[in-house]
Amino acid sequence: MSVLVVGSIALDTVKTPAAERREQLGGSASYAAIAASFFGPVSLVGVVGEDFPAAHLELFRQRAIDLAGLQVRPGRTFRWAGEYHADLNTRTTLCTELNVFETFSPELPPAYREARIVLLANIAPSLQAHVLDQMRRPEFVVADTMNLWIDIARADLLALLKRVDLLILNDGEARQLTGHDNLIVAGRALLAMGPHHVALKKGEHGCLLFGPGGDGDFFSCAAYPLPEVCDPTGAGDVFAGGVAGFLAAAGGAVTPAKLRQAVAHGSVLASFDVEAFSLDRLRELGREDIDARVAALRRLTAF
Amino acid sequence: MSVLVVGSIALDTVKTPAAERREQLGGSASYAAIAASFFGPVSLVGVVGEDFPAAHLELFRQRAIDLAGLQVRPGRTFRWAGEYHADLNTRTTLCTELNVFETFSPELPPAYREARIVLLANIAPSLQAHVLDQMRRPEFVVADTMNLWIDIARADLLALLKRVDLLILNDGEARQLTGHDNLIVAGRALLAMGPHHVALKKGEHGCLLFGPGGDGDFFSCAAYPLPEVCDPTGAGDVFAGGVAGFLAAAGGAVTPAKLRQAVAHGSVLASFDVEAFSLDRLRELGREDIDARVAALRRLTAF
Repeated sequence: MSVLVVGSIALDTVKTPAAERREQLGGSASYAAIAASFFGPVSLVGVVGEDFPAAHLELFRQRAIDLAGLQVRPGRTFRWAGEYHADLNTRTTLCTELNVFETFSPELPPAYREARIVLLANIAPSLQAHVLDQMRRPEFVVADTMNLWIDIARADLLALLKRVDLLILNDGEARQLTGHDNLIVAGRALLAMGPHHVALKKGEHGCLLFGPGGDGDFFSCAAYPLPEVCDPTGAGDVFAGGVAGFLAAAGGAVTPAKLRQAVAHGSVLASFDVEAFSLDRLRELGREDIDARVAALRRLTAF
Repeated sequence: MSVLVVGSIALDTVKTPAAERREQLGGSASYAAIAASFFGPVSLVGVVGEDFPAAHLELFRQRAIDLAGLQVRPGRTFRWAGEYHADLNTRTTLCTELNVFETFSPELPPAYREARIVLLANIAPSLQAHVLDQMRRPEFVVADTMNLWIDIARADLLALLKRVDLLILNDGEARQLTGHDNLIVAGRALLAMGPHHVALKKGEHGCLLFGPGGDGDFFSCAAYPLPEVCDPTGAGDVFAGGVAGFLAAAGGAVTPAKLRQAVAHGSVLASFDVEAFSLDRLRELGREDIDARVAALRRLTAF
């Protein structure tokens, strides 16, 4: 069955120390939906303006991404511009033009409401909650978030966490939300806030997975080694999309073993994402490339 | 056969945000020798003053550490004092009193010169080279270093690297020595400087192992998850001692598989070390505790 993905769809202008790309396909839902589509069908919920390039819609359709939940509104598509610093680990937002995204209210077509697995990609927690309100009874809810919502919508986010099966966030956000420097302590504190599982991303250092089974559920996923990073934009969204897409395609109940596999696949997809601007690397990728890198990840951590 | 360990022996005064301990057993050779002794016999080379507590000598003897290479000189033992900052990741050296260590020249008793595995724990690279000069034909040379030697003895260190089988250093030191921010690039650049293998330590993020076989030799070792760190002093020395001790006890040629096992055992020993001041946690440890944590490390990285 399809995985439901809701989030932002944007035209990004990204500057890295090496190059600049203007108005390329971006947004949390775009990255996540393309990533999830490697594993099975995807139902997309988002909003674009009338200026959204037809070529991007065509890319979604080619990848079996259902666009019944995509709203096309009068006005311009959401735009974001950012510049990465020399180490590519930090960035400055140069410009945010919300445009049609400012009044976005995600509405689910009837067929979408039955989805078993839902990914609430990075958007305001109130919108993420509004999506859950429309769903019949999802089996597994994955939610991504970011520092902005921890800053300006903490109460909404805390309320959402009680309805989430897997919370995804990075090390800085985990420290910000819990006040704990030690990531093991932070991960456990996040579980106490409501989500059944927490995936704590550490960029080049991999990802830690915490679950309700305590030490037995703890999974440390290595990062695939990359000598070169081109553009980190969307890596977190691709990770989330890969995790949710893998779980939807696996079918049946979400077990700890499936969740580990999902995290490994999400990590590997993120490692591909950062090798090129926008979704350029994912466009040319085949499932066999993903599987080969997952197998490599298993070999390079075995002892 | 015994593993040969040469390095410093000190009395450390350590202050953490939680507590302070005065004149406790420290030094790279002390930590490394005790760590190595969990796997088999150890031959120690170092120097202490006449004030060195007999209880510490007794600890070494109890653990089958051969002290034929330990020089006891007129004067005071090397002393070091440092203070850790709030996150326990950075520290300030408050005081260094070299004392008898100032004129230390490591001399190997004849029996020591036959050792198959040698650990050049953290001391000046010229002293590390002097030890190698006295050895017959060691099969596997492990060398640890630190930022100080990269700063003030870079030429000596670079010369030493050509005689080393496994170089151990941390992420900051790898960046400092190579000028590369990306740790995968830094690891490969270090191999090009001479050592056949490089263990690049990342503290709470684990350790990366690079080898002559390229991607096939690359090993990403997770860190054992620790919710609390008491005192990080000696963690790197214990890691190095665990690696060298494991290899010596394993016997036969050092294979990539043995090296991965050795790194896993070294990591686990370091995770015990930081749970208490000085060697307090290692004193009470049994081999079964180490094996249990290595087994846990395997479980928490499997997918």
